[in-house]
Amino acid sequence: MPASEQEMSCGRGPHEDLIRSLKQMLPPESLLTDAEDMRPFECDGLSVYRRLPMVVVLPDTVDQIQSILRLCHTLQVPVVARGAGTGLSGGALPLSNGVLLSLAKFKRILNIDPENAMATLQPGVRNLAISDAVAKYGLYYAPDPSSQIACTIGGNVAENSGGVHCLKYGLTVHNILMLKVVTMEGELLTIGAETLDAPGYDLLALMSGSEGMLAVIVEVTVKLLPRPERAQVLLAAFDDVYKAGEGVGAVIAAGIIPAGLEMMDKLAIQAAEDFAHAGYPRDAEAILLCELDGTNAEVSEHILAVRKILQQSGATEVRTAASEAERQLFWKGRKSAFPAVGRISPDYYCMDGTIPRRQLPRVLRQISLWAEEYGLPVANVFHAGDGNLHPLILFDANRDGELARTEEFGQRILELCVEVGGSITGEHGVGVEKINQMCTQFKADELEQFHSVKSAFDPDWLLNPGKAVPTLQRCAEFGAMHVHHGQLPHPELERF
Amino acid sequence: MPASEQEMSCGRGPHEDLIRSLKQMLPPESLLTDAEDMRPFECDGLSVYRRLPMVVVLPDTVDQIQSILRLCHTLQVPVVARGAGTGLSGGALPLSNGVLLSLAKFKRILNIDPENAMATLQPGVRNLAISDAVAKYGLYYAPDPSSQIACTIGGNVAENSGGVHCLKYGLTVHNILMLKVVTMEGELLTIGAETLDAPGYDLLALMSGSEGMLAVIVEVTVKLLPRPERAQVLLAAFDDVYKAGEGVGAVIAAGIIPAGLEMMDKLAIQAAEDFAHAGYPRDAEAILLCELDGTNAEVSEHILAVRKILQQSGATEVRTAASEAERQLFWKGRKSAFPAVGRISPDYYCMDGTIPRRQLPRVLRQISLWAEEYGLPVANVFHAGDGNLHPLILFDANRDGELARTEEFGQRILELCVEVGGSITGEHGVGVEKINQMCTQFKADELEQFHSVKSAFDPDWLLNPGKAVPTLQRCAEFGAMHVHHGQLPHPELERF
Repeated sequence: MPASEQEMSCGRGPHEDLIRSLKQMLPPESLLTDAEDMRPFECDGLSVYRRLPMVVVLPDTVDQIQSILRLCHTLQVPVVARGAGTGLSGGALPLSNGVLLSLAKFKRILNIDPENAMATLQPGVRNLAISDAVAKYGLYYAPDPSSQIACTIGGNVAENSGGVHCLKYGLTVHNILMLKVVTMEGELLTIGAETLDAPGYDLLALMSGSEGMLAVIVEVTVKLLPRPERAQVLLAAFDDVYKAGEGVGAVIAAGIIPAGLEMMDKLAIQAAEDFAHAGYPRDAEAILLCELDGTNAEVSEHILAVRKILQQSGATEVRTAASEAERQLFWKGRKSAFPAVGRISPDYYCMDGTIPRRQLPRVLRQISLWAEEYGLPVANVFHAGDGNLHPLILFDANRDGELARTEEFGQRILELCVEVGGSITGEHGVGVEKINQMCTQFKADELEQFHSVKSAFDPDWLLNPGKAVPTLQRCAEFGAMHVHHGQLPHPELERF
Repeated sequence: MPASEQEMSCGRGPHEDLIRSLKQMLPPESLLTDAEDMRPFECDGLSVYRRLPMVVVLPDTVDQIQSILRLCHTLQVPVVARGAGTGLSGGALPLSNGVLLSLAKFKRILNIDPENAMATLQPGVRNLAISDAVAKYGLYYAPDPSSQIACTIGGNVAENSGGVHCLKYGLTVHNILMLKVVTMEGELLTIGAETLDAPGYDLLALMSGSEGMLAVIVEVTVKLLPRPERAQVLLAAFDDVYKAGEGVGAVIAAGIIPAGLEMMDKLAIQAAEDFAHAGYPRDAEAILLCELDGTNAEVSEHILAVRKILQQSGATEVRTAASEAERQLFWKGRKSAFPAVGRISPDYYCMDGTIPRRQLPRVLRQISLWAEEYGLPVANVFHAGDGNLHPLILFDANRDGELARTEEFGQRILELCVEVGGSITGEHGVGVEKINQMCTQFKADELEQFHSVKSAFDPDWLLNPGKAVPTLQRCAEFGAMHVHHGQLPHPELERF
């Protein structure tokens, strides 16, 4: 991990003015300053990065959020907003000289409008709680990140979360209608509309995936979808991982968009099978799980078509789940693949990159060559339908130099994703984890344009500074980019 | 129309430095300075606004575009980019002291990638030409504005165009993957990726619908969809326009998303029938056209379900097109509704607003009350499924004061759209036409945020100034908003 992101001792005490003012605006239980109280907030799901903030605030009204941000703006104190802290790229890593703003108390469902298939939520509502609350109307909220039991809608918007179903139903950005956000200056803005399109620049999409760097999300209106009449899953086994990759392309080329199209290779299959007993064929080199949903007739028709396509692609076996219980079991294996791999290796590093689908065979081949070169096994588990890879590099952090080799291997995978026309993230965001790889993905002009957009919302760079978009200085240090026109915007921010 | 938007005589000759430099960088046929040569560029589809630019340039390489923009940036000359000029809100209206940059020569299809269902296009490729070019692979490009024979993909992106099929398949923003754009400073940026998501702020969505105010689009990569196996259309007649509105809600509530769901009221039906002989029931108060597409089985199932729902909503007749020829005929009536209304009235004013679907009956009722109050008949033709209204106000510009009354009536309709939770545009953009209504739709803080985003791309406000987002000064003059903090950003731009 880059040295500048490691825990830093800031060398000065907490900001007295700040604490005094916060005490005036918040009840005592909403303000944490003691190290032990703040410990749960020191990291998100990427726990290799940890840092205590100066102070944690847990407001429970939008007014309080506005006051906190106005105060921090006046005092020029940086702020990191945090949802459930399930993010995997360190986007919610605190700053030792900053405020950690938790949205944990914003848990209310504000409105459900079944007739227009929409719901308005506070940002701390859990992803799965939305679908649970609207189930009685036959509706659900489509994006389903693996962490959906715990992750919250505000964080989903900040990271533009995906999930198994995003192939057919889109990412978070495609499933939201309206946001209320508070800017660093404490202004409350309404963005988007309850209709398909809104005039003015598309700030709704801009906010989605902005990793807490433009404004703090305080309300989210989502689109709901009718629950499909039927969902069915096929499991196809292959004796060759590349044939499975070609099967993926053939399904899509046939004009069928599955609700989910997932792939696992041998190592992942075996680990998942040992853990979840999902009935996977242990000898297969790869399996595909293909979920089809829709009306009864549509699903029946698609199952026949997909079965035929996968057999033509060389599947050695194609099984249809015989019952809802078996369907759930097929998915249980896939969903437990990460913990299952965790059981067979002391450590693993979960990568997240995206490639155009046609590049699947090439990228898989290269990853397996590198796995030999580095002597590090890789289990591949991924959203094959949309080209989102999750190679899990197995390693042992206790072995000398193995973490560094793992990181180098991972970085080469991400650079390969860019090289073949893809990107360094799929659905986990950039955060602190992949900030250096942003220098590979973008030209200096493009990064500068991102910085201009940041400044248009937050001219002093106080919201979650140092995340997601690297400064040109950082890229120059990383060695991936020449500094443009010899100018460094905001060089003072390098200290974060 | 607001006085400041009317043709202005700028009172000085063409900018000599500019012309001299343009002559050096462009072949003679790519530079028009003669008033008669420039006449075809004086307006777009909103021809009530007309103005000659200082000069028209028709570059044919990206290098030339970069040079032109760099030059205009240096000389601080404003630039208006123009696609096919089919826009309906005056977004491409020239500036008398500015350059009109036509993308008409950028007509090449650069790449078709059937395996990944994408195509890369120059911005001047016509919308329908994309679907024509990829038809042999069984693919098509989904957004289909009425002007699709003529309008171009660059303009579609700039306006975030919709069409009959956007209910099911989304707007332009949902169907593009990557853009190349040139900033006002002449920088060439790549935005988006060939994958579902890209890291960094979502500039792809931000550019979509930005009405040429952030950058000039020079290349577009679109998603393609497999042509559905079957499309079928139902025509339902109602003796009451509100019942038709409820039918729309009932179809959507049943979890069926039609490929198109269009509504016409009696005046529109009769005009269309007289013009196109589509076989519409002349006595009906309203008709719905509902297109269903997908696999054979799915379409069969949906036709039965929709027929039943519409009968339950009180349809007096539900007909299924008996052949592809009849399907085309049903659509011909709908697609010719505007020219058909043009035949029965000396003038008409086509409004474009969006409302939440549940508000359809309320808004229709109010429009018909106002129609009586103003003594101006209204023909309603609209994309009912997504709440996008196109009321056509019939008037005679030769009658004293009738244009002014029509505009007032239209303005009240747009304000009603905002009041019921909708927006002042559906798919026609803001341009110069609705710039005052933006003051109704947005608070000062929100408009200021738009201006900050504009400045992040174009700090000197040289790209298409005076369009789409009003200055606070303008809103103050319009009487809809108080000036915020007493500050006016860029007051000098009020002259455009």
